Amino acid sequence: VRTLKLIVAYDGAAFDGWQRQPGRRTVQGVMEAHLSAVMGEPVHVTAAGRTDAGCHARGQVASFSTGGRLPAAALPPVLNRRLPADLRVRAAAEAPLGFDARRGAVARRYAYRLLREDDVLLGRFAWHPRRPVDADHLARATAPLVGEHDCTTFRGAGSTPTVSVCRIQRASWRPWDGGVLIDIMADHFLYHMVRSIVGTALALQGESDPARAMRERLAARNRSRAGPTAPAHGLCLEQVFYAEGAER
Amino acid sequence: VRTLKLIVAYDGAAFDGWQRQPGRRTVQGVMEAHLSAVMGEPVHVTAAGRTDAGCHARGQVASFSTGGRLPAAALPPVLNRRLPADLRVRAAAEAPLGFDARRGAVARRYAYRLLREDDVLLGRFAWHPRRPVDADHLARATAPLVGEHDCTTFRGAGSTPTVSVCRIQRASWRPWDGGVLIDIMADHFLYHMVRSIVGTALALQGESDPARAMRERLAARNRSRAGPTAPAHGLCLEQVFYAEGAER
Repeated sequence: VRTLKLIVAYDGAAFDGWQRQPGRRTVQGVMEAHLSAVMGEPVHVTAAGRTDAGCHARGQVASFSTGGRLPAAALPPVLNRRLPADLRVRAAAEAPLGFDARRGAVARRYAYRLLREDDVLLGRFAWHPRRPVDADHLARATAPLVGEHDCTTFRGAGSTPTVSVCRIQRASWRPWDGGVLIDIMADHFLYHMVRSIVGTALALQGESDPARAMRERLAARNRSRAGPTAPAHGLCLEQVFYAEGAER
Repeated sequence: VRTLKLIVAYDGAAFDGWQRQPGRRTVQGVMEAHLSAVMGEPVHVTAAGRTDAGCHARGQVASFSTGGRLPAAALPPVLNRRLPADLRVRAAAEAPLGFDARRGAVARRYAYRLLREDDVLLGRFAWHPRRPVDADHLARATAPLVGEHDCTTFRGAGSTPTVSVCRIQRASWRPWDGGVLIDIMADHFLYHMVRSIVGTALALQGESDPARAMRERLAARNRSRAGPTAPAHGLCLEQVFYAEGAER
């Protein structure tokens, strides 16, 4: 038995999220079906981030243990010939026995992309909000998030209990082709947290002091103080970090 | 009777190109079906550029004449409620009676997007060539194209005869999120011309003097001197110009 890790990318539009569910097309389900066929035995994969329906990934990390002998280097070409076009294995490597992509991850980096105007191509993975996007106000609103905070305000309803204190290492906006994106990195994220932060930052655009308003909302530790949750299709898991370095 | 013009955007992946064909899903076919329903009479639209299967558009211009009374401003919301998600009307305006989006156009601007590495999101509208992308060499290769040239070398097989001399106003490369893109503008383009230019520029990356090699190939006026035609999905019609200004 050995443990392997995969760097996985997917266009989430046609997936019901990561997690395997009977009768649904999920990333885990599709990946396990093909991995099991290739390895010649049932394979169970664990992901660093269980992305929601419609969310994308460019740097998801998945791990699994197997008795199969296929070398790691052969996995990307062999799997990519079988996998649908919206799911790709970017890299594969041997990992220490028992390596767990989820428990071993020390940080995750997400991007949420906003569009300044509707775009039929970019709109597949970026959101065009109704209100105008003001990059300066957004940056002022999210700056106070960097640090260690109880993020209960931004925890989506229906989540399973996890530690609500998150250490946010980065929350910065930068331009991209279609508008602006937030590059946000933390040790872990609560359910719907990035989408809730984006929705709240947009809702605070009208405030004279968006940083102060964001601090107040964060301190309230109350879901009702968050703005509307931004839609799933603007979110992308970009990168996962482990103790030994970035996994992409 | 009055004439209207539309600015149209589409994700070309699921269309068999612009031009109406029986039994095929084409942009013209889908657009005319909905436009006819909305106008209450059969409508025939003319496009500035008849894009190929798989090619995208952000700034296609289409014109039509109609006896229908729906005001131009109502067309985008009314049509976009009916149209599939991969086809959008960005704007509509009254045009001079008899305005023809194709014959009236004085210039078209296309982008061809190259990826430095595979990307499941950006790969929908950008191409990842096997050989490494060298932006500097590409720019040197295409610089000699600016000007008035017989572009027969870059005319795809199976095209209908048109004037083979094109006035290329711009052929410049710039970075985008996924790699580099060529921004190319001319009074008109021959069949497959942009894709043939991109494939040729990539093939010339190994040359010590790519500009000289491109000039030689252009002067040959011979299809056999072009590189392989780059695939359709990297191409996007960005903008069309008319005598009175840009139409987007």
